[in-house]
Amino acid sequence: MHIEAKLQDLGLALPPAPHAPPGIAIPFAWARMRGTRVYLSGHSAQGPDGAFGGPFGKVPTDVPLEAAQAAAQGAALSMLGTLQRTLGDLDRVTAWLMVYGMVNAEPGYAQTTNAINGFSDLILELYGAEVGAHARLAVGMATLPLNNAVTIAAEVEIAE
Amino acid sequence: MHIEAKLQDLGLALPPAPHAPPGIAIPFAWARMRGTRVYLSGHSAQGPDGAFGGPFGKVPTDVPLEAAQAAAQGAALSMLGTLQRTLGDLDRVTAWLMVYGMVNAEPGYAQTTNAINGFSDLILELYGAEVGAHARLAVGMATLPLNNAVTIAAEVEIAE
Amino acid sequence: MHIEAKLQDLGLALPPAPHAPPGIAIPFAWARMRGTRVYLSGHSAQGPDGAFGGPFGKVPTDVPLEAAQAAAQGAALSMLGTLQRTLGDLDRVTAWLMVYGMVNAEPGYAQTTNAINGFSDLILELYGAEVGAHARLAVGMATLPLNNAVTIAAEVEIAE
Repeated sequence: MHIEAKLQDLGLALPPAPHAPPGIAIPFAWARMRGTRVYLSGHSAQGPDGAFGGPFGKVPTDVPLEAAQAAAQGAALSMLGTLQRTLGDLDRVTAWLMVYGMVNAEPGYAQTTNAINGFSDLILELYGAEVGAHARLAVGMATLPLNNAVTIAAEVEIAE
Repeated sequence: MHIEAKLQDLGLALPPAPHAPPGIAIPFAWARMRGTRVYLSGHSAQGPDGAFGGPFGKVPTDVPLEAAQAAAQGAALSMLGTLQRTLGDLDRVTAWLMVYGMVNAEPGYAQTTNAINGFSDLILELYGAEVGAHARLAVGMATLPLNNAVTIAAEVEIAE
Repeated sequence: MHIEAKLQDLGLALPPAPHAPPGIAIPFAWARMRGTRVYLSGHSAQGPDGAFGGPFGKVPTDVPLEAAQAAAQGAALSMLGTLQRTLGDLDRVTAWLMVYGMVNAEPGYAQTTNAINGFSDLILELYGAEVGAHARLAVGMATLPLNNAVTIAAEVEIAE
């Protein structure tokens, strides 16, 4: 698969490890690997320095759909960065399983599916239809960590 | 177990594969099967033509509790339809494991548990107390895909 | 590890099995054990009699951050009580895997991470950095069962 090469071809770079923002303690693990499973914590888009760079606020009032889709792609890059540091090689993922896509949405907003597609489309482009296939939630939250517009968690399978 | 026969006895029909609604892209899989696990995406009640038929809006202001319970049962039928198309035979499920019950609820609404019981009660009636037993969330969301009142995801075990 | 002894040293007691509150039916299992996995339903802080004792309402307007952190620790004790009744011995947990931390939060509230740390800090103190490590969500909900301020679900690994 050579996921790292595909990312480079797409002009996409993986961010460094997330910074804990001021006043926020991070006691949990960004990835929990055990046997053939990796559980991935809620990830949001990062800036090139590793800080969570937003966008922040409600979709679509503060953050329009297109920016939410970009934030979902940014969450994918943040998560792939975590996987790269955890596994050493992104090709070790043998199956995407479940994706928990969460949008900081206005009550009644009907487009959470399209927002989270920014994540799913990139994973499918990188891993292809067989390895990249995944079940998914794409749901609207009252808020997310740091008031991020999009946060995404996942479970993937790896070869032991 | 003969789940299909039990559904017929109850007068319940499984809907056809979900339609992608106009303007919404569905890149994800409704079910992701891998080894002994099937991960099921967020499902909502479908009409007999396969379209998501609601109810839409907030529980309990737009959608009263009884309608939300019916929507949770409808989400179960939608998910069983997906499982039937994925597994060929609903008796292949050897254990329900975890259910993610989500209600498009007004802030502070205290009855999300009873709303999602429309799902759990049907699964337990069909599969019995041993196979059908499941852990569960029943929580209130700011919104759900298409502004559905109820969306439910799950993880089940199958014999390999 | 001797988790029960550590709890005693910390002056923390596990509550009895949860009471179903009046008018709420509980058809689901608080824990679903299968092979090497235990799936844990959404748990909230309990009083010494087993009733869900709150705090109830929105964080931070009805329930300030410090009370939400205590509620998250209470949810951990409720979940550990369930695990103790399910496994007989809390030392049978070989790895915490994924934690679904949910806060009944005001829209835009930015501190859900710190609220759920009340859960993660206790698990890490009891189980240590290797067994206790876990991936996590810490997200804001429109509401939670009974309008609880904090509800937490999890998946853990056990030796078969």
